[in-house]
Amino acid sequence: MGYPLSKIAAVVGGELFGDPEYMVSSLGSLEHANADQLSFLSNPKLSSVLASSEAGAVLLRNESDVDLVRNAIVVRNPYLAFARASELFVVKEQGWEASIHPSAIIHDSVVLGKGVVVAPNVTISAHAKIGDGCIIGAGSFIGENVVLGQQTRLAANVTLYDRVRIGSRCIFHSGVVIGADGFGFAPNAGEWVKIHQLGSVQIGNNVEIGANTTIDCGAIHDTLIGNGVKIDNLVQIAHNVVIGDNSAIAGCVGIAGSSVVGKNCTIAGGAGLAGHITLADNVHITAMSLVTRSLDTPGSYSSGTAIDSTPKWRKSAARLRRIESMAAHISKLEKQVNTLLTKG
Amino acid sequence: MGYPLSKIAAVVGGELFGDPEYMVSSLGSLEHANADQLSFLSNPKLSSVLASSEAGAVLLRNESDVDLVRNAIVVRNPYLAFARASELFVVKEQGWEASIHPSAIIHDSVVLGKGVVVAPNVTISAHAKIGDGCIIGAGSFIGENVVLGQQTRLAANVTLYDRVRIGSRCIFHSGVVIGADGFGFAPNAGEWVKIHQLGSVQIGNNVEIGANTTIDCGAIHDTLIGNGVKIDNLVQIAHNVVIGDNSAIAGCVGIAGSSVVGKNCTIAGGAGLAGHITLADNVHITAMSLVTRSLDTPGSYSSGTAIDSTPKWRKSAARLRRIESMAAHISKLEKQVNTLLTKG
Amino acid sequence: MGYPLSKIAAVVGGELFGDPEYMVSSLGSLEHANADQLSFLSNPKLSSVLASSEAGAVLLRNESDVDLVRNAIVVRNPYLAFARASELFVVKEQGWEASIHPSAIIHDSVVLGKGVVVAPNVTISAHAKIGDGCIIGAGSFIGENVVLGQQTRLAANVTLYDRVRIGSRCIFHSGVVIGADGFGFAPNAGEWVKIHQLGSVQIGNNVEIGANTTIDCGAIHDTLIGNGVKIDNLVQIAHNVVIGDNSAIAGCVGIAGSSVVGKNCTIAGGAGLAGHITLADNVHITAMSLVTRSLDTPGSYSSGTAIDSTPKWRKSAARLRRIESMAAHISKLEKQVNTLLTKG
Repeated sequence: MGYPLSKIAAVVGGELFGDPEYMVSSLGSLEHANADQLSFLSNPKLSSVLASSEAGAVLLRNESDVDLVRNAIVVRNPYLAFARASELFVVKEQGWEASIHPSAIIHDSVVLGKGVVVAPNVTISAHAKIGDGCIIGAGSFIGENVVLGQQTRLAANVTLYDRVRIGSRCIFHSGVVIGADGFGFAPNAGEWVKIHQLGSVQIGNNVEIGANTTIDCGAIHDTLIGNGVKIDNLVQIAHNVVIGDNSAIAGCVGIAGSSVVGKNCTIAGGAGLAGHITLADNVHITAMSLVTRSLDTPGSYSSGTAIDSTPKWRKSAARLRRIESMAAHISKLEKQVNTLLTKG
Repeated sequence: MGYPLSKIAAVVGGELFGDPEYMVSSLGSLEHANADQLSFLSNPKLSSVLASSEAGAVLLRNESDVDLVRNAIVVRNPYLAFARASELFVVKEQGWEASIHPSAIIHDSVVLGKGVVVAPNVTISAHAKIGDGCIIGAGSFIGENVVLGQQTRLAANVTLYDRVRIGSRCIFHSGVVIGADGFGFAPNAGEWVKIHQLGSVQIGNNVEIGANTTIDCGAIHDTLIGNGVKIDNLVQIAHNVVIGDNSAIAGCVGIAGSSVVGKNCTIAGGAGLAGHITLADNVHITAMSLVTRSLDTPGSYSSGTAIDSTPKWRKSAARLRRIESMAAHISKLEKQVNTLLTKG
Repeated sequence: MGYPLSKIAAVVGGELFGDPEYMVSSLGSLEHANADQLSFLSNPKLSSVLASSEAGAVLLRNESDVDLVRNAIVVRNPYLAFARASELFVVKEQGWEASIHPSAIIHDSVVLGKGVVVAPNVTISAHAKIGDGCIIGAGSFIGENVVLGQQTRLAANVTLYDRVRIGSRCIFHSGVVIGADGFGFAPNAGEWVKIHQLGSVQIGNNVEIGANTTIDCGAIHDTLIGNGVKIDNLVQIAHNVVIGDNSAIAGCVGIAGSSVVGKNCTIAGGAGLAGHITLADNVHITAMSLVTRSLDTPGSYSSGTAIDSTPKWRKSAARLRRIESMAAHISKLEKQVNTLLTKG
C-alpha cells in the first residue's frame, strides 16, 4: 500500500516540492518517521526539528522550510492536511464477508438500507430503520423503532435503546450505551419512587462517540446531541442535556441533567457540569473543573488546585481550611495598623 | 393511548378539579406541554408560571391555584404524583415475541421461573436461577450460580459474573458489570501478586443501576448493596463496599474498597470516597468532592474550589500554593504590630 | 474443599506452628474468620487483635505471636503469603463444557492454540491468533489480526479492535474496550475533521484490566502498556499513552493523549493526567489529583482541597476566590508596618 506524493498533494490541496512520484507507505511523527513515511510540522516556529527528521516527505506551512526536508507539501494548515491525508492510510480490514451475517437476529419488521453490513451476534429489534451503508458491529444491540441515518457505523458491542434516533456518518465506539433511563426518582418516606423516563435521544450527523460513553434518554422530552459533536470515552451525559453543534467533550466528563452546552464549546477531561445550567457558545472548560453555575460569556473557565508534592499540598490544604481565620487576622491587623497610623 | 383525568387522579390519590373525562395522552413540562398533556407544579411559590402554560391538566399542591389551569389534580406532593403517573405512560414495546429466544444459549441446569423473557444472543451459565417474570436483555451474560429474584430486568449487554445474587424488581442498564475481580494485589519485589477475589456481590430489592456502572466482587466476604439503592451511570464500586438502603449515587462516582455508605445518603456526580471509611446515615456529598475520612455526623460535605475564569483561577491557584508563606507573613506582622502597640 | 495447613505452609513458604493436618476450608478476615478459616495479620504492631479472632489459622510475621492463635504460619510477608494462598481457594466453575461453543462465530482464518476455550456468542474475526490456553468469555469480540499470548483470559463482553496485540497471562474484565479510535480531530472552520487513528495497542504480559476500562489505539504509533501493569475499572487511557512496567492505576483515572507513566508508579482513584506529560518511575499520585505538568522526581503528589462541611466549605471557597486580594492587603500592611517601625 502506498501513494505517490502527487496524489497526497492533490488530496490535501497543497503545493508539492520534490519528487511527485515519491512513494509514501504510511504516516509517521517527525521524530520517528522513516524515508517511506509522511510527517507534518504544525508549528512553523519549530522548523529546527526538521533537519533531524528522517521523514520521506513533510507537510509544511512555510515554503522557506522546504529545503530542510527530502520532499515537502506546503499547505496553509499542515495539521488539517495531516488529518485529510490520514484517511488515505486507514487499513482496510476485510470485515465479515456476508453483508448480513447469518448469526445476526434481525426482526422481520426491520428496514435495512442498501449495502448495510451486519456482523455476527447482532440483535436488531422490531421496526428499526437502518440507513444505506450503515455498519453494525458484532454483538451490538439495536432497540425497537431505532432510526439510523446513512453510513453510520457502530463498532462491536454498542447498545441503542428503543426509539433512539441517530443521524448520518456517525461513529459510535464499543460499549457505547444510548438511551438508558435517566436518573430520576421522587423521594417518598425515605424511599425513591421511579420517574419513568419517557423521552428518548436524538443525535445529529457526523457525531463520534467514544468507547463506553453513556447518553441517557430524556425524562419527558428528548436528550439532544447536535451535528458534528465529538465525545470521547467514558463520558456521562444525563437526561435532557442539550449539546450544541461541533462541541467537543473529552474523556471522563460528566454532564448532569437538563444542562445545555452551547456550540463550539470544548470540555476537557474529567470536568463536570452541574444540572440545569447553560454554557454559552465557545465556552471552554479545563480539565477536572466543576461548573456549578451558568457561564454566559465565551472564554476559558477552571476550578481546582495545582499539583504539588503531597507533604506540601497537605500543609496548604490544611491552611486553606482555615482561610477564614487568616482573613480575620488580616482584618484585625488592618484595624490595629490604622490606629497606629492615626496616632502616629 | 391516553387516560381520562379521573383515572390519573385515582392513581396518584388526588382531588380532581375540572372535567373527569378529560383525556390525557402524555406528559409534558409546564413550559412545553400542550392541551393533551399532563404537567406538574412542584413548588407552589412558582404558581405564576401556571397562567402561561398550555397544559391540559396540572398536578398541584395548592387548591387556590386550580383556577389558573384548565384542569387540575390537587395532591400533597405533586412531584411524587408525577412519578406515579409516569408509569402509566411508559411506551409498551412489543419485545421479542418468543419468551425465550431460540438464539439464547441457556445451560441445561439453569432454573427459569414463570414468564421469564430471554432476548436474542443471551448466555446463561450453569446452575443460574432466574426468578419469575425476569427479563434478560439481548447479549447479556449470566454466570454460573447467579440468582435473580422476581421481576428483575436486565437491559441489553449486561454482565453478571459467577455467584452474584440479586433481589427482586431491580433494573440493571446496559453495560453494567457486576462481580468482576476487586483490585487487590500484594507488592513483591517490584511486581504485583494477585490476591484472588473469592467473595461475590449481593444486591437487594428495588435496586436500579445505570449504564456501564461496575460493582466488584469482594476479596473474601461479599460486596453488599442494600434495598432501594439507586446508582447512576459509570459509577465504580470497589470490593467489599457496603451501600446502605435507599442511598442514591449519581454518575461518575468512585467508591474505593471496604468503604461503608450509610442509609439514605446521597453522593453527587463525580465524587470519590477513599477506601476503608464510613459515612453515617443521611450524609450528603456534593459533586466532585473527595472524601478521605469517615463522616460520623449527618449533613452535607464538600471539597474543591469554585469555578472561575481561567486567568483569574491561575492566579488564585498559584497564590494558594504559597498560602503557607502568606500565613507566615501574617504571623510576622502580628508580632511587629504587637511590639508597636506595646511601645505605643 | 479444603487444604491441610501443611499444604498451605508449603505454598506460601512459611514455618508452621500447630497442627499440620488442620483443615482450612476457606479464607476470612481476622474479624470474621471462623475455626475453618485462614486469616492473616499484615502489621505485627496490631497483634493485640489476634486474641479476639476465631480464625483456625493465621499467617503471621512474628514468631512471638504464635501463642495468640490456634495455628500459625510464620512468613516474612503475611500479606504476600495471603495473596499466594488465595489462589488455592478460587472456586472452580465448570465453564462451558465444549472447549469451543458451537454458537461462537470464528472466522476460518483464525489460528486457535491448544486448549483454547471459547464461550457462547463470541465473535473472532479474520486472521486473529489466540495462544494456547486462552479463555474467551461469552459475547466477547476479537477483531481482525488480533494476537493473544498464552493463558490470557477475557471475561464476558470484552471488545478488542483490529490489530490489538496482547501478551500472556493477562486478565481482561467485562466491558473492557481495547483499541477504539483515539480522540483526534483537526479544527477547520468551526467543525472537526477526523484524524484517522492508524496505530494500535500493544499490551505486555501479566496485565490485568478492570471492568469497562478503555484503552485507545495510537494515532500513528501504538499505545503501549508494559508488563505487569494493573489497571482498575472505568479507567480511560488515551491514544499513544505509554505505561511503564508494574505501574498500578486505580478506578476512574483518566490519562490524556501521549502522556508517559514510568515504571512502578501508582495512580490513585479518580486522578487525571494532562496530555503530553511524563511521570518518572516511582511517582505516586493521590486520589482525584490533576497532574498538569511532568513530574521528574519520584515521590507522592497531590492536588485538591480537603473535605469539609458544605457551609464551611462554601465560605472557604468564596474566600479562596479572593486570595489575591488577601495577598494585596498583606503587602499593604507590611509597607505600613515597616513605615511605623522605621519611624518608631
